[in-house]
Amino acid sequence: MPETARLLAATVDTGRDRARGGYSRPVFSAAERELLEWYLAELRARGLEGTTDRNGVVWAWWNPAGLPLEGAVVTGSHLDSVPGGGAFDGPLGVVSALRALDLLRERGVDPARPLGLAVFPEEEGSRFGVACLGSRLLTGAVTPGRALALTDPDGNTFADVARGAGLDPAGFGRDDEALARIGCFVELHVEQGRGLVDLGAPVAVATSVIGHGRWRFTVRGEGNHAGTTLLADRRDPLLVAALVVAAARDVAAANPGTRATVGRLDPVPGGTNVIASRVDLWLDVRHPEDVVTAAVVAEVSRRAARLAAAEGCAVEVREESLSPTVDFDGALSRRLSGVLPTAPLLATGAGHDAGVLAGRVPTAMLFTRNPTGVSHAPGEFCTDEDAEAGSVALADVLADLLTGPPPG
Amino acid sequence: MPETARLLAATVDTGRDRARGGYSRPVFSAAERELLEWYLAELRARGLEGTTDRNGVVWAWWNPAGLPLEGAVVTGSHLDSVPGGGAFDGPLGVVSALRALDLLRERGVDPARPLGLAVFPEEEGSRFGVACLGSRLLTGAVTPGRALALTDPDGNTFADVARGAGLDPAGFGRDDEALARIGCFVELHVEQGRGLVDLGAPVAVATSVIGHGRWRFTVRGEGNHAGTTLLADRRDPLLVAALVVAAARDVAAANPGTRATVGRLDPVPGGTNVIASRVDLWLDVRHPEDVVTAAVVAEVSRRAARLAAAEGCAVEVREESLSPTVDFDGALSRRLSGVLPTAPLLATGAGHDAGVLAGRVPTAMLFTRNPTGVSHAPGEFCTDEDAEAGSVALADVLADLLTGPPPG
Repeated sequence: MPETARLLAATVDTGRDRARGGYSRPVFSAAERELLEWYLAELRARGLEGTTDRNGVVWAWWNPAGLPLEGAVVTGSHLDSVPGGGAFDGPLGVVSALRALDLLRERGVDPARPLGLAVFPEEEGSRFGVACLGSRLLTGAVTPGRALALTDPDGNTFADVARGAGLDPAGFGRDDEALARIGCFVELHVEQGRGLVDLGAPVAVATSVIGHGRWRFTVRGEGNHAGTTLLADRRDPLLVAALVVAAARDVAAANPGTRATVGRLDPVPGGTNVIASRVDLWLDVRHPEDVVTAAVVAEVSRRAARLAAAEGCAVEVREESLSPTVDFDGALSRRLSGVLPTAPLLATGAGHDAGVLAGRVPTAMLFTRNPTGVSHAPGEFCTDEDAEAGSVALADVLADLLTGPPPG
Repeated sequence: MPETARLLAATVDTGRDRARGGYSRPVFSAAERELLEWYLAELRARGLEGTTDRNGVVWAWWNPAGLPLEGAVVTGSHLDSVPGGGAFDGPLGVVSALRALDLLRERGVDPARPLGLAVFPEEEGSRFGVACLGSRLLTGAVTPGRALALTDPDGNTFADVARGAGLDPAGFGRDDEALARIGCFVELHVEQGRGLVDLGAPVAVATSVIGHGRWRFTVRGEGNHAGTTLLADRRDPLLVAALVVAAARDVAAANPGTRATVGRLDPVPGGTNVIASRVDLWLDVRHPEDVVTAAVVAEVSRRAARLAAAEGCAVEVREESLSPTVDFDGALSRRLSGVLPTAPLLATGAGHDAGVLAGRVPTAMLFTRNPTGVSHAPGEFCTDEDAEAGSVALADVLADLLTGPPPG
């Protein structure tokens, strides 16, 4: 078994979700912390020490010459997962970073600058609703005040949960010293579509992250008895929410290239014989052109207001996150392509910490082939051979960045 | 404060639901058991002892003459609630039974037959999906095999949860000895609509329980990434589920008198950036004519199959419960009306244990006015005066049944 696959095999029993299938590792959950402990032990086995910064990012440094950390080459990914997610989204990048470090040492690479390994918290945003929360806090893209007040589905605040994980809520926020240490950031990630399958290649270099955002629609009506309330007397927010889901698909279909998704919808109280009093649903919209994303959300919101009024309900729409389309650093990506001349170029509809960091430091990404094209679901996959090819490609890229001219 | 209100006041802190508002007392939960303990203490304070039969029904007997229990007059209701339900649905009938007993004793009524007080488990069906589960088991309307395999939202079986509550799963099932003890059953319940408000009366005698049923629709699609999966590649079960919710309203509207409700809808895995792989939704349908109920469900199921096929999904429809329209015992209801000549007659769209027992023993119901008309929600209400009037009416009815000719 190739070494990357051997490392991955150590992660596959952590956070399995027997109800949903796949994995559920919400940030700061026992499962995510268990995987982090495994990672910290792997670092120690390599003579490295993981330390957590004030935004919850875990850093480790390979710096045999004891150089200043400013301007280092950094790689890494995340260990949290969506509910019922796949085995590779996040862990593949973390494991490939470890494997790439081993390869660099085996090759006797003598780094002219330090190599940083980073693990970011709440990349998925599946617990607190804001994707890439760690990198957004680090770069100042989200304020600590807003982040600390976010709540998880059980009503716990990010402040309380972070405190429970040993972090000081007062420490969260933009960290220019940490950013100054990142000369460039290269994230490896399993591909979340069929691009590399169609292209017949194991590894790609990223061009851009398609812009995306999340909006929470709260529809309020009147809770009542399902058996005794005539249709004419109803103010049923679940009917309105259902029509909003249908409207989102219609509006997306009318705007080619749009991905619009409702994957979470919570009726309150959620009883079988109870007309709901409130329904929350989350609309995820992505398009390469940010103006189209904005127009789609505006149109769905307009229709939602009309649909709610027709049922005697009210709807409130709140933007939970919004990231414009991000083009990765051209010079850095060209340098990656120079090292990997056979790797095709791919855009991605998925968000990544690399996309958030791109606003402050030169960033690039590598994608590893996913034969099913499925992601955020148990069917997500990467063959042992492709996982190893990804690690080797990452090592090749890092070797160049560590020994060639300074990046950025 | 009238005595009925004083007794109710002792129940209002048990099982409050801070997230949903109102009360959540699933059967065999800590909150429902706490309320039952309070009830058992109230029985003891009256020199009565509550005993639980093999189907989880709690019985107590006022039998000062030590007569055989067969052919007794029985009253009572339930203590479980829907999630986020009101304070009166269930407890009002239990409390009114206690108050009626006190009134009978104060009046010096000398009963010619025993009075039974009964509390039925899982009347709402909000934990295991089948309403009136206790009375259905007692009468044989549901088999123990089916009941024991039912699961709650956390995946616990009814068998395991009942065992945890001290019941023996092997004991569940039709109990002809218990049924023989019920000469007649009279249940008092808060009204779950505006009938008595419009009629300007505090108490009504029931005529019938409108037929109703629950069907679980399971839509299966393909879980995938919300950002990377193009609309054309999607098999999104939440879109199909939303269209089924809309279809249910349309079909109900086309069949006057139909109540069709989806109040519970669970996407799996339920992540904001994940196309769901499966959605379960529950359709509650009620109509005075059972053939209309059947036709509505058949038409919604047909449309669901078409909608699922159009999205590359599959849908499965399972009947979880079905109760035909029940007309209460004519002779018994006329006897109640004779005792309460000013009480109007009302049908109800809500299900009740009295409706299930009606298939085996003479049953009747009294409704107490609900000024909001709201039920299964925090707005459900009953004034102190109306609650007392309900207890007095129940005592009047019981006095007649206990001292007049044998009922049934």
